[in-house]
Amino acid sequence: MSARDVTGDLLARLRAERPRIHCITNAAAVAYTANVLLAAGCIPSMTVNPPEVEGFVGGAQALLINLGTLDPLRAEAIAVAIRTAQAEGKPWVLDPVFVERSPTRLDLARDLARRHPAVIRANRAELAALTSSDGGDEAARRLAHETGAVVVRTGEVDFATDGTREIQVSGGHPLMALVTASGCSATALMAGFMAVEADRFLAAAACLAFVNTAAERAGETARGPGSFVPAYLDALHALQPADFGSRTPMS
Amino acid sequence: MSARDVTGDLLARLRAERPRIHCITNAAAVAYTANVLLAAGCIPSMTVNPPEVEGFVGGAQALLINLGTLDPLRAEAIAVAIRTAQAEGKPWVLDPVFVERSPTRLDLARDLARRHPAVIRANRAELAALTSSDGGDEAARRLAHETGAVVVRTGEVDFATDGTREIQVSGGHPLMALVTASGCSATALMAGFMAVEADRFLAAAACLAFVNTAAERAGETARGPGSFVPAYLDALHALQPADFGSRTPMS
Amino acid sequence: MSARDVTGDLLARLRAERPRIHCITNAAAVAYTANVLLAAGCIPSMTVNPPEVEGFVGGAQALLINLGTLDPLRAEAIAVAIRTAQAEGKPWVLDPVFVERSPTRLDLARDLARRHPAVIRANRAELAALTSSDGGDEAARRLAHETGAVVVRTGEVDFATDGTREIQVSGGHPLMALVTASGCSATALMAGFMAVEADRFLAAAACLAFVNTAAERAGETARGPGSFVPAYLDALHALQPADFGSRTPMS
Repeated sequence: MSARDVTGDLLARLRAERPRIHCITNAAAVAYTANVLLAAGCIPSMTVNPPEVEGFVGGAQALLINLGTLDPLRAEAIAVAIRTAQAEGKPWVLDPVFVERSPTRLDLARDLARRHPAVIRANRAELAALTSSDGGDEAARRLAHETGAVVVRTGEVDFATDGTREIQVSGGHPLMALVTASGCSATALMAGFMAVEADRFLAAAACLAFVNTAAERAGETARGPGSFVPAYLDALHALQPADFGSRTPMS
Repeated sequence: MSARDVTGDLLARLRAERPRIHCITNAAAVAYTANVLLAAGCIPSMTVNPPEVEGFVGGAQALLINLGTLDPLRAEAIAVAIRTAQAEGKPWVLDPVFVERSPTRLDLARDLARRHPAVIRANRAELAALTSSDGGDEAARRLAHETGAVVVRTGEVDFATDGTREIQVSGGHPLMALVTASGCSATALMAGFMAVEADRFLAAAACLAFVNTAAERAGETARGPGSFVPAYLDALHALQPADFGSRTPMS
Repeated sequence: MSARDVTGDLLARLRAERPRIHCITNAAAVAYTANVLLAAGCIPSMTVNPPEVEGFVGGAQALLINLGTLDPLRAEAIAVAIRTAQAEGKPWVLDPVFVERSPTRLDLARDLARRHPAVIRANRAELAALTSSDGGDEAARRLAHETGAVVVRTGEVDFATDGTREIQVSGGHPLMALVTASGCSATALMAGFMAVEADRFLAAAACLAFVNTAAERAGETARGPGSFVPAYLDALHALQPADFGSRTPMS
């Protein structure tokens, strides 16, 4: 089974439905995340103003919560946003960036992980902090079992598990690590795939395959991290369902 | 009469005077708006810190108020900024983005519209919410009459009216809609044109023609929304008064 | 003596050590600063949330304090960050942007200048405001003597002095002035050079030479301020120690 098998189908739905994704994300990622979502086919909104969040999440099909550059306003917005998403049965994705660097943030991340996110995305260091472990495959599986979330560990090879099924997705490009908010924006896009597919494991796998393919394509022409950015956004926009081969859904 | 007829003259003045534009805008638009203003020939400042706003607006020639990612600090900054601009007779431009998505924001936008903005810019959905109507031409005219503002409705074809005169400006490029803050930054630039021309209708029309021409030029080489951005900024910088033909002012 | 003489050595160390730089910077500069640091070889973090700042500064090797878009949260974060940096003997760099436009900001900048920054970076107008002078070379020397900081005045030709040694660094490219946060991000990178070289004057000089060389290289292919950005980031990434000739340290 390859993640690419389902990517074409889900991308076709994303392009047809153009889901609205509300993002509460960090200051370094706001603009880039909006551009990644627009290029891929979603409609982003980005406000972190608590009185407005209910309205925006209410009008969206999925929600991203990213813990970077957390501040009291964002903390309040996050609480309102998750409450709204849960009340309306909308999927939300948790991105606990840099939790290994801040005990305050780690506490919040652990609390949020128990509030039924559809996906928890973390790199190995973040997963290690979150689970007080080495951040390996077993830690990912355990976190998936404990929280009910699909756990996605990003890295040179991405790994996703819902505790039962699991998949490795390779590809991508090393220059992604030299562009700020590459991971943050890809996780926002994962919320977009959640909006069009109820099987969260499939949606996560399809998003990883889509992002990695776009990054590979961008890497073919990029001359460094600067020229990678426009090439990557162009690729997110240019890729079509047919570029992902067979449309047989994964079973 | 074409908006391009006056664009050359006003662009020449903009390049000569390099007006300072203070912007209170949303988190997704801050950097891009500053870059659009710099590329076109203005000097931007972007602080939303209330104690500093009076000094910055006092040193500027025009003001942009954009309601995206509104928060308590921005709300306070907006009040100070408009008060300062009005006390000094400086034009300010209102961009009520996404008011159709948030009742809180809509209330504020309606309040601000009565505080004598030089321009109100809105797309059809925002204009519809603002005027409790279908957002058509008649709604734009009525809002212009009620507020004394030039009302600019952006869309596939832009429309501007001061209640008496009106103009349609076509052009632009579809990729603009896939770049976050395209509209926000263009509205900031409209404040730049207000700074160099007292006839606000002419200034608005010239800005629309300038922006649409730059977008068309960028669209000639862009391969997607990513490469559109640098091409658009390059075009804003490269376009010269002579590119807009006759300099006969519109009467 | 040329600043380029030491740049190769220090760049080699930067690439080997990959220092973590915590940045408290303005809203227009957050993403671009992170991208400049990543492209050059540093690891940025950008949070301004006061409870998290101690952890992030504690895990970093140097600190940037930029006073743009100051707000109460950033003001509090700055106090925590400087206290942490000083307690741990880590260098910090002060960038008092636009102090000539805001009395509030000027007061804060003067206070912070007395708190032992490794570097104070200012253009002529900012230096003039800071020192109540014409912002000339003598003002820079006096500020260096008074504060113990290396004072860097950026402009068409950059000037750096520790009160005893001084150096002029030319190069760079005019398009830098048309890209928002060009100076802010270059000053953040100066914190990166402070992290790998204890002689702060050498580190500042090397950073200026590195940045100006990257800008020159970007200017060779840029068609305007839009295409300058990716070309500049690519150049920051592509430049190697060997591109800076002799490695004889400056004495």
